[in-house]
Amino acid sequence: MKQLFESYLFEKGLEGFPTVLYKPSLQIMKMKAKRLRPVLLLTACESFGGRIEDALDAACAIETYHNFTLVHDDIIDKADIRRGDATVHKIYGINKAILTGDVMLIHAFQLLNKVPRDKHYQLIELFEKTATEVIEGEQYDVDFEDVQEVTLDEYTNMIRLKTSVLLAASLKMGAVLGNASKNDVEKIYDFGLNLGLAFQIKDDYLDLFGNQKTFGKRIGGDILQNKKTYLLCTALKKADANQRKQIFNIFDMKDEEKKISNMLAMYQSLDVHTETERSMEAFDEIERKSANYFLKIQHFLIT
Amino acid sequence: MKQLFESYLFEKGLEGFPTVLYKPSLQIMKMKAKRLRPVLLLTACESFGGRIEDALDAACAIETYHNFTLVHDDIIDKADIRRGDATVHKIYGINKAILTGDVMLIHAFQLLNKVPRDKHYQLIELFEKTATEVIEGEQYDVDFEDVQEVTLDEYTNMIRLKTSVLLAASLKMGAVLGNASKNDVEKIYDFGLNLGLAFQIKDDYLDLFGNQKTFGKRIGGDILQNKKTYLLCTALKKADANQRKQIFNIFDMKDEEKKISNMLAMYQSLDVHTETERSMEAFDEIERKSANYFLKIQHFLIT
Repeated sequence: MKQLFESYLFEKGLEGFPTVLYKPSLQIMKMKAKRLRPVLLLTACESFGGRIEDALDAACAIETYHNFTLVHDDIIDKADIRRGDATVHKIYGINKAILTGDVMLIHAFQLLNKVPRDKHYQLIELFEKTATEVIEGEQYDVDFEDVQEVTLDEYTNMIRLKTSVLLAASLKMGAVLGNASKNDVEKIYDFGLNLGLAFQIKDDYLDLFGNQKTFGKRIGGDILQNKKTYLLCTALKKADANQRKQIFNIFDMKDEEKKISNMLAMYQSLDVHTETERSMEAFDEIERKSANYFLKIQHFLIT
Repeated sequence: MKQLFESYLFEKGLEGFPTVLYKPSLQIMKMKAKRLRPVLLLTACESFGGRIEDALDAACAIETYHNFTLVHDDIIDKADIRRGDATVHKIYGINKAILTGDVMLIHAFQLLNKVPRDKHYQLIELFEKTATEVIEGEQYDVDFEDVQEVTLDEYTNMIRLKTSVLLAASLKMGAVLGNASKNDVEKIYDFGLNLGLAFQIKDDYLDLFGNQKTFGKRIGGDILQNKKTYLLCTALKKADANQRKQIFNIFDMKDEEKKISNMLAMYQSLDVHTETERSMEAFDEIERKSANYFLKIQHFLIT
């Protein structure tokens, strides 16, 4: 599915791109990627009996939109490296990266025009709502860097907007294009939301409790950056006044090993990992309940 | 017309904007502005006998898109002031300005969804093509800063993309919404292109040959910045090898008064102002020829 998608993307999906901005767009679009969102979309379409060919343009739109967010987010996060390669603004400068992102966002809309005409209006409305939410989520994420405390509800809302809604919308668009029933279309959207939440919470969990080799990042990296994660928000929720003070003290620690071990000890005393595991399981449970609806997608996600 | 538009824009046009990005969007949308594009759109619609109410959302879309380009262009141009007020990135920082622009661009598409359904597809295609061209034009404009020479054709193409196509598309959208004939729709688009070109060339001309008081900017500002303008491109086209060398020498001059007077003398010896006046007149002539088609618009533009 991924291969089929990529060959269509590079053959048809980038047609009509302005020459002056074509290279930087290609730069990010050609990076090694899982293509999770388009594959979810195509799989959803197929699993409801739809034709893959009817969904390829929508899949390109979603992937182009996703890559647009990466171009602008990398500027915002001052990230020089993505997936092992230099980021667009690192190579071409911030100005070109801003304009490249802008054109990619418009191009995503242009790709959506190619979906079967009777579905166009429904898909474009969903896409616009989702696209706005993702940027709203990114803004909350940026804002969280400057505050000392984020509640668990605020954090969950942020990851819902920043990560989950685009997965959910990808599945929903595929379902619509596959002529799924209205009920199935709504169910698969909720499934996507829970999938996204479980995915993000697991990512936060593995940052501290994962195996460095399989996870691929440094264990405790989020703690070193004072990043607001599901673990930290849970800890702050459960902590008493004295423990909260200790957590804020850990924020200011300079010794990296000590910082990680102190925060880990705090999390353990507050039983943060159990609570986080429980949340992951709750979202996974909702996913499992949906599984009989979406056998093929479940199969894809497992394999 | 402007007042009618503004009251609709602030009452209905900003509905559904994400709270976290509402304030910076409002910041730019509420600045004092001519509202040239929406007024052109509404006037075109009305002059073909269409209902203004059917065109207000499209007018909001065009104005929101235009303001999105201002937010991102001000970041790119490092402009701290616009129309006498601090720019969005100056007040809220670059990160928020990038995301604000992104959301405004998507919001422009959302506003377009509200146009009468039978016109939606045609208008959205035109809007996407135009929106891409404007960004392409901005990229050329940025690129021109780093090269010593731009041909007159390259310059004209840049201002066509950066300025003219959006004026042309505003008129065309209004005409479509006013149920104009296919022929009129194409004619008014060309009229808008020529209007934009004449407008931009006149702007370049007035920078040097205008009256400081009425023009409102410092006379010769473009020369001090080595800006590629219609005047400079014309001069380079007409100059011989020796004169070209002199022009490039003027680029490096530090004394501001001397720099302006030297370049002015060079333009005069090359008869640049006559050639520029001829171009303005040529575009104005095409405009005048269209005038009998678009009496009301002509009237609006004059008054």
